[in-house]
Amino acid sequence: MTTETGAHPFDLATVLKQDGEGRYVGHTTPDYSNMVGPFGGITAATLLRAVLDDPRRIADPLSITVNFAGPIADGLFTIDALPVRTNRTTQHWSLTLSQNDSVATTATVVCGLRRATWADTEIDPPAAPPPDAAPAAAMPEYPAWLRNYEMRFVEGNLLSGQASPTSTSTLWVRDAPSRALDFASATAMSDVFFPRIFLRLGTMVAASTVTLTVYFHADAQTLADYGDRPVLATARAQHFGNGYFDQSAHLWTDAARPLVTTHQLVYFKA
Amino acid sequence: MTTETGAHPFDLATVLKQDGEGRYVGHTTPDYSNMVGPFGGITAATLLRAVLDDPRRIADPLSITVNFAGPIADGLFTIDALPVRTNRTTQHWSLTLSQNDSVATTATVVCGLRRATWADTEIDPPAAPPPDAAPAAAMPEYPAWLRNYEMRFVEGNLLSGQASPTSTSTLWVRDAPSRALDFASATAMSDVFFPRIFLRLGTMVAASTVTLTVYFHADAQTLADYGDRPVLATARAQHFGNGYFDQSAHLWTDAARPLVTTHQLVYFKA
Repeated sequence: MTTETGAHPFDLATVLKQDGEGRYVGHTTPDYSNMVGPFGGITAATLLRAVLDDPRRIADPLSITVNFAGPIADGLFTIDALPVRTNRTTQHWSLTLSQNDSVATTATVVCGLRRATWADTEIDPPAAPPPDAAPAAAMPEYPAWLRNYEMRFVEGNLLSGQASPTSTSTLWVRDAPSRALDFASATAMSDVFFPRIFLRLGTMVAASTVTLTVYFHADAQTLADYGDRPVLATARAQHFGNGYFDQSAHLWTDAARPLVTTHQLVYFKA
Repeated sequence: MTTETGAHPFDLATVLKQDGEGRYVGHTTPDYSNMVGPFGGITAATLLRAVLDDPRRIADPLSITVNFAGPIADGLFTIDALPVRTNRTTQHWSLTLSQNDSVATTATVVCGLRRATWADTEIDPPAAPPPDAAPAAAMPEYPAWLRNYEMRFVEGNLLSGQASPTSTSTLWVRDAPSRALDFASATAMSDVFFPRIFLRLGTMVAASTVTLTVYFHADAQTLADYGDRPVLATARAQHFGNGYFDQSAHLWTDAARPLVTTHQLVYFKA
């Protein structure tokens, strides 16, 4: 089922109301709640949407970095978005998400014009059968945000409940109900992987993303043309230690074209 | 030769003078100049140093993201460093580097307490002979910043002048004159790789880093204990297209311990 854009739960969860130049008011949505506060991916997408919505924007996003500084309480929040530097072809934004004058999240976004150049992809997508060959995982009731995604695991499904020698997960993922891909939804999908420490230990421990960076390799037209087809998503940790691990992930089209490369640093207690 | 800390060119290039709470004045140094403006790694290290120097800092750095928003002219610059959120164990900083009230660079830094936890490294260092077995590359006169590093290439030296089928470079690197490793110098070393597009095309084209992120896997003691021994550095691009490519890189000790994982998005014209 595809819901009309605008009425889709993702759009409702990331909608912002402008309150003066560069100031936007949003609200958390129970549909996208995580263990504590909202799913980080929806927060990141909402911050990006402030830039996407801003009439001062000169180009599409190239990258976003989101720093999760403190918990977000249920209810309203304010995003302040400032284009700190606008050049001829690039624009640099700084953003904060606040509640009661306390900053909960910061972000920087780089926008820039794309043009045809020499191109090559050096990395390969992970081996995976077509989406239809992988069954959609039954999603738990909790945390709620998981029910907004259809996940077809190829490797590394948490639900095995066993410790794994590697932290790699590969899955076909799309919004549920399905929705055409765009920069905002690709940002949220970049955070769709449960914490890699769960997979290594075979159990859930306290874990939360500290900082997330997304590089967009696809332009707006490529994302729109891809529509609501499942995205091939793969993630792994590189190093765990001293209470933190990093995760490196890629999102691919079903034709082996890279959409996004993304990295995050995650706090854990184990 | 090891120069006394403080008098080392790296320390002189990143030195800041405090001018009120959270405000620091620095200056560019001809020794670290690049094609246009300073070497990005020295700018990143100088921004980190503003946080390292700040008496409000509660813990060591976990990560830094630097956005290169515009050119930095030769001369003085001002860094404004704001701890936007201080928690019990983590602290989030936002920074700008300005000249004449125009923002040239933005950055965010996350600091956080480290403690002993479950640990594992999933990635492997690249194959490399010991540093002494790789000759130190003769450095060109221009750009000047290269002469501040001793580089012993194992793979992917630009100077071959031939197009390469992959963008991987691996080298042993240290400051020249040698200097004990710390967060600031590890940040600069994270940007020590020439643009990967040069290697693929076998020629130099216009290229500049748009945004750079560094995750610090080593703590201050580990860095200090490593001293001035060469660091094993490896970098590759993942995707080139539409005027941008991303680079993923690692810095390792000579005992296969990860010091840093780092990523950047780079503009190019080709």
